[in-house]
Amino acid sequence: MAMKFLNYYHTFKTRKKREYINITELVREKVFESGISEGLAIVSAMHITASVFINDNEQGLLADIDEWLEKLAPEGDYRHHATGEVNGDAHLKNLLMHHQVIIPVTSGDLDFGPWQEVFYAEFDGLRPKRMLIKVIGE
Amino acid sequence: MAMKFLNYYHTFKTRKKREYINITELVREKVFESGISEGLAIVSAMHITASVFINDNEQGLLADIDEWLEKLAPEGDYRHHATGEVNGDAHLKNLLMHHQVIIPVTSGDLDFGPWQEVFYAEFDGLRPKRMLIKVIGE
Amino acid sequence: MAMKFLNYYHTFKTRKKREYINITELVREKVFESGISEGLAIVSAMHITASVFINDNEQGLLADIDEWLEKLAPEGDYRHHATGEVNGDAHLKNLLMHHQVIIPVTSGDLDFGPWQEVFYAEFDGLRPKRMLIKVIGE
Repeated sequence: MAMKFLNYYHTFKTRKKREYINITELVREKVFESGISEGLAIVSAMHITASVFINDNEQGLLADIDEWLEKLAPEGDYRHHATGEVNGDAHLKNLLMHHQVIIPVTSGDLDFGPWQEVFYAEFDGLRPKRMLIKVIGE
Repeated sequence: MAMKFLNYYHTFKTRKKREYINITELVREKVFESGISEGLAIVSAMHITASVFINDNEQGLLADIDEWLEKLAPEGDYRHHATGEVNGDAHLKNLLMHHQVIIPVTSGDLDFGPWQEVFYAEFDGLRPKRMLIKVIGE
Repeated sequence: MAMKFLNYYHTFKTRKKREYINITELVREKVFESGISEGLAIVSAMHITASVFINDNEQGLLADIDEWLEKLAPEGDYRHHATGEVNGDAHLKNLLMHHQVIIPVTSGDLDFGPWQEVFYAEFDGLRPKRMLIKVIGE
């Protein structure tokens, strides 16, 4: 069989500076649309102040994660702000959390464990930000 | 040539809460079994309180890593514990260390540098936890 | 169409212990050479004291990142140093920043957002270190 590909660009515009959005169903839908049975889905923030990660869909935990990120990569004064930006912390949060995941696709679905869900994490929102879902396989 | 795939699910049950297990030979064996010469291996923890990472097989360093993780993502009180869980720190350690690696496969073997070895890191063990090795290529 | 592959091994020898090198054009060139239109590029440090990451090409920010890494994974005494090495901090910085990225390739080019650039981060330089660029697709 030949390789198949699906590219999908999603634009977020969050109402808050920091926000955690469950995108599991969106990614699953794109895998279904692709008709790909065996392969992988790259889910990648196209901006450098956001993240894509896999964890538990539990609101308390998401609040813990947000507090923890602010502790390890706090808002504050950064050299980067000499450019006029004020989002130095969002760049560091992006590095800490990574900007992408590779989700295995098996039998036409996300090959996930029982608690795995995919999230888009916005660290510098209130403006349009893009994310790519690319499904590759056959 | 057509694409080939191999999916292998491995179950760990560690005897300690936190444990670092060298899985290099296991992953290599699965690459050999797949018969894939050029491609990649996704090695992914299917739970959200474990990690897969690449580093040096040196016991002192693994102890350093464990101490460092406990410093940056310590055991303690988390909102998540309102659910009855007590593993908030394990979720944060997972985020810090990431849950997966993509290993390049070249000439039918892991395309590694001289010191690279793959580890499964358990942060909330003493129960069955699954990991996926998916090899894709031709 | 059949799958295509390109493997390219790049050797760095930095003049400083820690250095951040923009490799965007190098990776792009290899994608062009591969003739691959749809697929992905794995860009992976082959040593365990270096990193590959995507962020903004802004010198102030790169200095912020370096200072932040030194705060979260500082130089110091580590058990690992009993082996004769003195680079324990570089291993931890590698884990924090991760050793690889997977770049989506679309229409024969890196599928990047407006500010995304790829960097090789050296944390224990002054000697030859290798990095792999592997392009896969069709």
